[in-house]
Amino acid sequence: MTKLLRSWVESANSAETDFPLNNLPYGVFSVDGSEPKCGVAIGDKILDLASLETTGLLDFDGTLRTGSWNAFMALGKDQWSRFRSELTALLAEDSISQGGVEPHMVSMDQATLHFPFDLAEYTDFYAGRHHAQNVGTMFRGPENALPPNWLHIPIGYNGRASSVVLSGTKIKRPNGQLKGPNDEMPRFGPSARFDIELEMGAIVGQASNGPISVQEAFDNIFGYVLLNDWSARDIQAWEYQPLGPFQAKATATTISPWIVSAEALAPFRTTTPDRSKPLLPYLQEPAPMLYDISLEVGLTPEGGRETIIARTNYDEMYYSAAQQLAHHASSGCPMRIGDLLGSGTISGPNKENRGSLLEISWGGKEPMTLDSGEERSFLEDGDLVTLRGAAFGEGYRVGFGECVGKLLPADKV
Amino acid sequence: MTKLLRSWVESANSAETDFPLNNLPYGVFSVDGSEPKCGVAIGDKILDLASLETTGLLDFDGTLRTGSWNAFMALGKDQWSRFRSELTALLAEDSISQGGVEPHMVSMDQATLHFPFDLAEYTDFYAGRHHAQNVGTMFRGPENALPPNWLHIPIGYNGRASSVVLSGTKIKRPNGQLKGPNDEMPRFGPSARFDIELEMGAIVGQASNGPISVQEAFDNIFGYVLLNDWSARDIQAWEYQPLGPFQAKATATTISPWIVSAEALAPFRTTTPDRSKPLLPYLQEPAPMLYDISLEVGLTPEGGRETIIARTNYDEMYYSAAQQLAHHASSGCPMRIGDLLGSGTISGPNKENRGSLLEISWGGKEPMTLDSGEERSFLEDGDLVTLRGAAFGEGYRVGFGECVGKLLPADKV
Repeated sequence: MTKLLRSWVESANSAETDFPLNNLPYGVFSVDGSEPKCGVAIGDKILDLASLETTGLLDFDGTLRTGSWNAFMALGKDQWSRFRSELTALLAEDSISQGGVEPHMVSMDQATLHFPFDLAEYTDFYAGRHHAQNVGTMFRGPENALPPNWLHIPIGYNGRASSVVLSGTKIKRPNGQLKGPNDEMPRFGPSARFDIELEMGAIVGQASNGPISVQEAFDNIFGYVLLNDWSARDIQAWEYQPLGPFQAKATATTISPWIVSAEALAPFRTTTPDRSKPLLPYLQEPAPMLYDISLEVGLTPEGGRETIIARTNYDEMYYSAAQQLAHHASSGCPMRIGDLLGSGTISGPNKENRGSLLEISWGGKEPMTLDSGEERSFLEDGDLVTLRGAAFGEGYRVGFGECVGKLLPADKV
Repeated sequence: MTKLLRSWVESANSAETDFPLNNLPYGVFSVDGSEPKCGVAIGDKILDLASLETTGLLDFDGTLRTGSWNAFMALGKDQWSRFRSELTALLAEDSISQGGVEPHMVSMDQATLHFPFDLAEYTDFYAGRHHAQNVGTMFRGPENALPPNWLHIPIGYNGRASSVVLSGTKIKRPNGQLKGPNDEMPRFGPSARFDIELEMGAIVGQASNGPISVQEAFDNIFGYVLLNDWSARDIQAWEYQPLGPFQAKATATTISPWIVSAEALAPFRTTTPDRSKPLLPYLQEPAPMLYDISLEVGLTPEGGRETIIARTNYDEMYYSAAQQLAHHASSGCPMRIGDLLGSGTISGPNKENRGSLLEISWGGKEPMTLDSGEERSFLEDGDLVTLRGAAFGEGYRVGFGECVGKLLPADKV
């Protein structure tokens, strides 16, 4: 297990912070309505990189002065590494540069966070085995739970990039076409089965213009965020055959504000689970490319207190983001800087590991009881959902911050 | 029927040109490697709008000097109309401004055309009834051909914007996962059932951030292009359950280079076909919002001559682009300037009206014979596919130019 790297930023040395020197996640922030710019989280501070770059202590061609990490991503993997190592040196406990760096620190509680990159396109996968097994069992029974292609392909679909929002954005319950199995005709009205999906999002940091290997895909991934794929199950049930989910997934997808770099997560690399069937060569992992990241979901009813409704781990995924990206590019599909890949819902083997209310309440048949005594099958108006995640080293955690969204009532129709 | 508007550009007065004064389609061009800029096609000429704007004969806030129509679209519908009426006056046979405008004309055959707008996201629909009926009959038999939701929802899925290319771009046959019904395991190799889909593309010219009515959706559509949704049927067959087509549609989608404005098409508005079941109010058309546009597909084998393999009409669509856009926004999904909506394959009632080889060859069971005597079930390497379309007035046509793509062999695997 790797150890805490100590920083002269005292709050970064706590075992409780998401942002020790080992992490250095990438965000975009503003203070008092100023132009958004690039920053790195360290303890309870944000290091203003745009401001620091003017001192000459860092030089990345002005890419850090933009309100997005895309220009920096375009510099490539060698520069990503140089940046981390230079920044780690500047912030280390014994750094001789403390005096030069310290004036460029901002208190996190005074900053407003913004979407950290220019999102190109958003793809969502269905690559967690326990989730696919649970959902398949509900709809087709345990024998036919996994579709025939599932163990061969990281099944994915294109999502709607314009609907991806930053943590904290309020989510309005959607209206949509609904039809119960016994209804003669569909009707248009508010979704009554509005749900969450606990996922990780991988951010593509290098473009490709043709098929790439799993290793190349791994190298092209810049970092990771938490991702909540809000889902209207009743809209989905009626619309999704034959071409997949569309309006059921178009209301919103929320991401956490800090991009945790692949390099920061390197000590926590782990293999995907054993294969039930061998993968075709273009999908085989040459090395461990998944990560051991503990995840949890909290649900807080309006005016109430939070219940942790799920605990699971990213290492439950059957396919890594690298495998998903290699598959995505396999047809020649051009991939771009700023593409976001949702992992698919991350459930674990047990009931307490289920990453969606659909699974937790088993399609609404087994409502769960919150700590307050209230029951939940799906989300109620006013519910606040919080995703959290962290990888654990010796005496420290590499965390993601929170991915939060509150549900507002639907528009009247 | 409306009449030809005569122009002092003589070639624009021919019944054969796609680009009479009634059309004035919007493109982006360059000459001899210059910066791409906005232009309008008129006969065999392109009017250089960037250059014309410097004279003061047109003034649209510099939006025409960019290499994309997005900034102009953002000005809104009133400016779209003012632009057309001012340009129509400048180019009319009796215009007093001929001397001022003529120096800004470029010969079309000296220009290179570029992608005419900044593409935001690409959505493809499945909203042509004959196509859905044909495909459904092949896979499920005639009784169950249409999915239960089909007559209630314009079924759509998110496509991959990075794969949308301009007419003339060569298309490489994709590799992908393939598995025949009798194969034990899938394999990775070149698609053997690579196909086209004849579609129209609608370009969203105004953003929305919540549900909109069909009328608002109609008003937000800037114009139309021809669209060829290249499709790998064998990859699709294995991957598409349960979440829809993904890599089968990610190799490329080709559009024609000129955006024909909704205003130019206004004389050709027509209603969607009679409803088999009533639509929910949010999808009902308040006025005719489809267009009478004749369409054809030509297939030219390497070194051979062209066979017209399909003739159909955009008026065969069951749902208009306005209905598709209203549905797309119904969940609260934000729509943006530069979103592209593919109509879905436009087939007609008869065999000669089928807009895909899948239908023409009935899943490969009934290969067609080209004029050269060669047979085709799906595309062969070297095949050149050309889509053409035009609406017909009295003695003139409002055409789209050609949407062309040639198929190159797959990469070796």
